[in-house]
Amino acid sequence: MAHQKPKPQVVDIHTHMYPPAYISILSSRDTIPLIRRFPSSPDPRLILLEAELPALEAALHDPTAPLPGRPLTKHFSHLSQKLHFMATQKIDISVLSLANPWLDFVSPLEAGQAADQVNGSFELMCTARKGSRFFFFGTLPLSAPLPTILASIDNLKRLPHCRGIIMGTTGLGAGLDDPSLLPILKALATAHLPIFLHPHYGLPNSVYGPRASEYGHVLPLALGFPMETTIAVARMYLAGVFDAVPALRMILAHSGGTLPFLAGRIESCVLHDGKLATVKRGRTVWEVLREQVYLDAVVYSEVGLRAAVEASGGAERLMFGTDHPFFPPVGGEAGDGEEGKWESVRLNVEAVDKALGEGSEEAGMVMGGNAVKVLRLYEE
Amino acid sequence: MAHQKPKPQVVDIHTHMYPPAYISILSSRDTIPLIRRFPSSPDPRLILLEAELPALEAALHDPTAPLPGRPLTKHFSHLSQKLHFMATQKIDISVLSLANPWLDFVSPLEAGQAADQVNGSFELMCTARKGSRFFFFGTLPLSAPLPTILASIDNLKRLPHCRGIIMGTTGLGAGLDDPSLLPILKALATAHLPIFLHPHYGLPNSVYGPRASEYGHVLPLALGFPMETTIAVARMYLAGVFDAVPALRMILAHSGGTLPFLAGRIESCVLHDGKLATVKRGRTVWEVLREQVYLDAVVYSEVGLRAAVEASGGAERLMFGTDHPFFPPVGGEAGDGEEGKWESVRLNVEAVDKALGEGSEEAGMVMGGNAVKVLRLYEE
Repeated sequence: MAHQKPKPQVVDIHTHMYPPAYISILSSRDTIPLIRRFPSSPDPRLILLEAELPALEAALHDPTAPLPGRPLTKHFSHLSQKLHFMATQKIDISVLSLANPWLDFVSPLEAGQAADQVNGSFELMCTARKGSRFFFFGTLPLSAPLPTILASIDNLKRLPHCRGIIMGTTGLGAGLDDPSLLPILKALATAHLPIFLHPHYGLPNSVYGPRASEYGHVLPLALGFPMETTIAVARMYLAGVFDAVPALRMILAHSGGTLPFLAGRIESCVLHDGKLATVKRGRTVWEVLREQVYLDAVVYSEVGLRAAVEASGGAERLMFGTDHPFFPPVGGEAGDGEEGKWESVRLNVEAVDKALGEGSEEAGMVMGGNAVKVLRLYEE
Repeated sequence: MAHQKPKPQVVDIHTHMYPPAYISILSSRDTIPLIRRFPSSPDPRLILLEAELPALEAALHDPTAPLPGRPLTKHFSHLSQKLHFMATQKIDISVLSLANPWLDFVSPLEAGQAADQVNGSFELMCTARKGSRFFFFGTLPLSAPLPTILASIDNLKRLPHCRGIIMGTTGLGAGLDDPSLLPILKALATAHLPIFLHPHYGLPNSVYGPRASEYGHVLPLALGFPMETTIAVARMYLAGVFDAVPALRMILAHSGGTLPFLAGRIESCVLHDGKLATVKRGRTVWEVLREQVYLDAVVYSEVGLRAAVEASGGAERLMFGTDHPFFPPVGGEAGDGEEGKWESVRLNVEAVDKALGEGSEEAGMVMGGNAVKVLRLYEE
């Protein structure tokens, strides 16, 4: 009797949680990132972005001003809510990660302990339910001295559900093309821990012009975030980081920011730069993309998804994600309307189905097969 | 006897010239943009970008420092050189435009006359050779008072070879979402003069990090330019400019910057923004792209070209360009090695051939057919 082919698993590799230790760090702060309660809101507000500063200032001085940031709903902090989200969105496995800005802002002396707490919390979340439905990307104490960071990597290697680390674009403060970061990148490569690169800082507010506040968060989130990721990876490429650490693997948030679309322009600009073209170069941008880079599939369009697949050399380098709990259904800000349909999830599922064919082998790979294989999403 | 189908014409809609009046304006300046002679260089140097300022400072104080900017070769100023380029690259028709930063920096009192001179020079270039091989995009005196700008549009309507205008992203100074720009956009729409939107200002140098100077011009040109264009168009969209001027047609440089790849993310961010989603919206980003926007095909990759075609709804909205005389063959900086193969042109031709099929009807449309039709590239 022929066996029916099992339905491929759906894996969400881009899904954030805030454990209690992190929430208490944010709640104790006076500058962004911070969590603040306002009398007019049932949930505390989570204020993360430079672009949200004007709204925060306004709300602190005027109780009738619109609330800054976003509500810190139980979607951010409760594992039961994550499980509910997974059930309603038909997600089998989630690879959890701390949301931006991770521990970038924590003082050097406290960062090591904070990382241990946060990573310990994530490991606990992964074992809280039977059946291996959770794995996680750890967080490094990048503001701490090098030995502390390396010790943190050692610690992550021993946590059974850790499958990589999530990192922003600033590295130790000077960006990912900073030579001081190389020992850390090498330790991660040796430990087989890929970096999930995620934006946070965006672009300076000035680039959005005088009417920016009328457009909500659209410009910094839709354009600043992807450009930040693209600049960070381009700097790594130009500094030769990928050649220096060939075993390093990167997973780029938001399908690489804009890298799939701009790779040709980057490559051409390097070829035509009098200064760079005369330097002996390693691999092309395309080769690095296809050899050391994976992309999540959080791009919200068939056009973008197909470009991401083509740029990275095939559907085996893309992995589905939701960006939960960000981009909840509008109207459900308080957490009560977020139980059902998540339009943000639907857009990304539909992009995979349309670009690769609903039910196709390639779609199955992007929706989960690749993540299971690349991130070894089983008990070891 | 059957007629052989004529070979479709190749039209270059993204090709720049500096007429003598403009070169003398730039040569008289002390701040960027400017043209400056250095003892160690046969050609004067053209220094346009904020990112080139550190190199300019260095070269002014140290005669052994690398030269700033790029050489002002005859490719920028001589029509005979443009014709030679067209002959070697097999281009039948060129739609000439002034290069950035146009007249953005000219004082309000002088801008009107400067525009007349520049536009007059372009019209003369177009009639200098028999056979309609040249048309042009005019330049507006955007720093001048509104009546001067409107008079300049009237003047352009009377120049027989003008087919639109080239414009940067600052508009009257506050960007393209500035309501004060609407009368100008309406006048252009009424005159059937599309706007060729071209970047110049890029992003603040700070976003490229402390090692930026090691990477030549790559980061500002490859990433800053496309992001500038994307932000400008997104701001127009969010401000409702396309709905306010439905007859406006835009041609976006560099295949829309990053718009084809990020349109999905923009659309999703709008849908999920508590503030914007509750406002009654006009058309989606996709609809505006397909109804009011054309893209040039200067994207240097098959992946980018295909995304541009798909995002804009079909091959009939893309038009080939070269960005000549920028990105000359490396080694030919002095102008003597630039006679033969232009890699930058090859990359863009190859992108069209690979994405749409060499010799296909769609490739022919992008290589010239669309431009002839959309821009009416014949004597009227």
